Amino acid sequence: MDEFALIEALQARFTRDPSDLAPWIDLGDDAAVLRGDPRPSVLSVDASVEGVHFERTFAPPEDLGYRALMAAASDLGAMAAEPEAALLALTIAPGTDDAWLLAMADGYAQAAAASGLRVVGGNVSRGAQVSLTTTVTGRVPSGASPLTRAGARVGDDVYVSGRVGLAALGLAVIRSGSPPRSAAAQEAQAHWRRPRARIALGAALRPYVSSAVDLSDGLLQDAAHVARASGVGFELVLTALPTAPGFHAACEALELPGDATALHGGEDYELLFTAPPAHRGAIASLGADVTRIGCVWSAPDVMVVCRDGKPRALGEHAGFRHRW
Amino acid sequence: MDEFALIEALQARFTRDPSDLAPWIDLGDDAAVLRGDPRPSVLSVDASVEGVHFERTFAPPEDLGYRALMAAASDLGAMAAEPEAALLALTIAPGTDDAWLLAMADGYAQAAAASGLRVVGGNVSRGAQVSLTTTVTGRVPSGASPLTRAGARVGDDVYVSGRVGLAALGLAVIRSGSPPRSAAAQEAQAHWRRPRARIALGAALRPYVSSAVDLSDGLLQDAAHVARASGVGFELVLTALPTAPGFHAACEALELPGDATALHGGEDYELLFTAPPAHRGAIASLGADVTRIGCVWSAPDVMVVCRDGKPRALGEHAGFRHRW
Repeated sequence: MDEFALIEALQARFTRDPSDLAPWIDLGDDAAVLRGDPRPSVLSVDASVEGVHFERTFAPPEDLGYRALMAAASDLGAMAAEPEAALLALTIAPGTDDAWLLAMADGYAQAAAASGLRVVGGNVSRGAQVSLTTTVTGRVPSGASPLTRAGARVGDDVYVSGRVGLAALGLAVIRSGSPPRSAAAQEAQAHWRRPRARIALGAALRPYVSSAVDLSDGLLQDAAHVARASGVGFELVLTALPTAPGFHAACEALELPGDATALHGGEDYELLFTAPPAHRGAIASLGADVTRIGCVWSAPDVMVVCRDGKPRALGEHAGFRHRW
Repeated sequence: MDEFALIEALQARFTRDPSDLAPWIDLGDDAAVLRGDPRPSVLSVDASVEGVHFERTFAPPEDLGYRALMAAASDLGAMAAEPEAALLALTIAPGTDDAWLLAMADGYAQAAAASGLRVVGGNVSRGAQVSLTTTVTGRVPSGASPLTRAGARVGDDVYVSGRVGLAALGLAVIRSGSPPRSAAAQEAQAHWRRPRARIALGAALRPYVSSAVDLSDGLLQDAAHVARASGVGFELVLTALPTAPGFHAACEALELPGDATALHGGEDYELLFTAPPAHRGAIASLGADVTRIGCVWSAPDVMVVCRDGKPRALGEHAGFRHRW
């Protein structure tokens, strides 16, 4: 059974009875929404596992802690939720150095402070690997709606924030074992180590946006999540994708395909969102680092207008689908 | 650094700034309480890790899933919170059998249904071991207060629900590799496999109780948590501890010290609580399986009146302190 089938089978087990789907619960987005109170709660969980999501050699422990928190917090940005609290379930491998662990906690605390999250509790367990499982909670302001993946409409514009493919390039730099050889490689490495959850951007976009997702699995795969949830298709323009200056040269230096890295590279934690063209001015006036990269159409597919001007269905990439 | 020191060092890092301790947050109990809304939220996280908390040979996968959820839900009982939602962060080891995993999810779903919790989200990751990290949320009813560890007063009675030491005996039966040889051994094995979070009991006790904790680390250690949080001491009477019929004989058959197992055995997930003597009648009229086992006094220690009638400070047992 592949990951997709497994997650569907798990979900089926957890919502077997109609009463499991209470009207105050929204499932299956970047986070669950519990609507029982004036300010609905948003809940999400994310794991950062040694040997899977990081190796201790990849970065100083402060950075590993920092990115573990940010990866979880990113879902709050995608939902335009106000950050509230975080809980850390920490698994410690035998022989883990105390100073290393505490430095990791320092970075984790820095990321929480930078995201407006309070770390209110946790759990410590032994285990074969170090892992950090973070639950984040947020609130939808009274009277507002959370952003979801399901609201994209035909004719909407498609945007992405920041730059795409940067974390994947950064990880390749780190894995190469050599120091970054260009400004782009250096920026990419820094982005992998210290991503930022786009919480303020999500909140600022809320009035204008029809759907949103955070980029964790890669641009095409996350775009496909939104398209599927909204029952629409996307046409994205490859040459419109925002990449860092020198990105393609830095990819080439590492024998990494630049376009594929931009389209499929995961863990950027930027926002992909859709908005009606009527809001172009309002979105531009936010002064945010967002780029229009395509439009929503009716065919149920994510097509990419390639460098030769021809639209192609490139597939979503066999990324690891890890969240439900 | 031992676990105690590590957890304190972690906590210090997460509440370094005074603004981290917002007035709407209560930390350091069985769960955090966020008081921002009419019905305060209760949040807790608990991990169940292969090779640490269970082995696959210990029980059918349904039971391993069942107890992972119940261990997390138990904190809601201790706080007298109404169960709301659960999130499951699942780590899957390479080669884990699909049918085994799905059976585990079945048991997890059963425990959620039995606890009144909806599984609203989760995360799947690869890892070296199977682990289930569960976040639970609950609500304190409008106008009510959650039970805490800090309210025990000198002169209060001390109670425990159910039977103590049963899970530890059950685990010894399971580890022995032989089938249970007595009714008590069988009951103990069943209790380890299918503990029940005392959620309804916690809610029923709320009007009468001055402090409460769930028994995860062992009776003496959890009693010491309450005593310390409340700034009081306990005198517990060893012969008053409720044990299952045949418990001591079943312990002896496994060369397990019966009294120490009752005092130190963890993972019973029963409630230890204190209440003023004026509420004895009201508590008795609940018809619940609770037993008075001692009283609260002023000396800052947990003393046990032993079988010879003499009170002794037995120490808390070097249990694994895993939650903060």
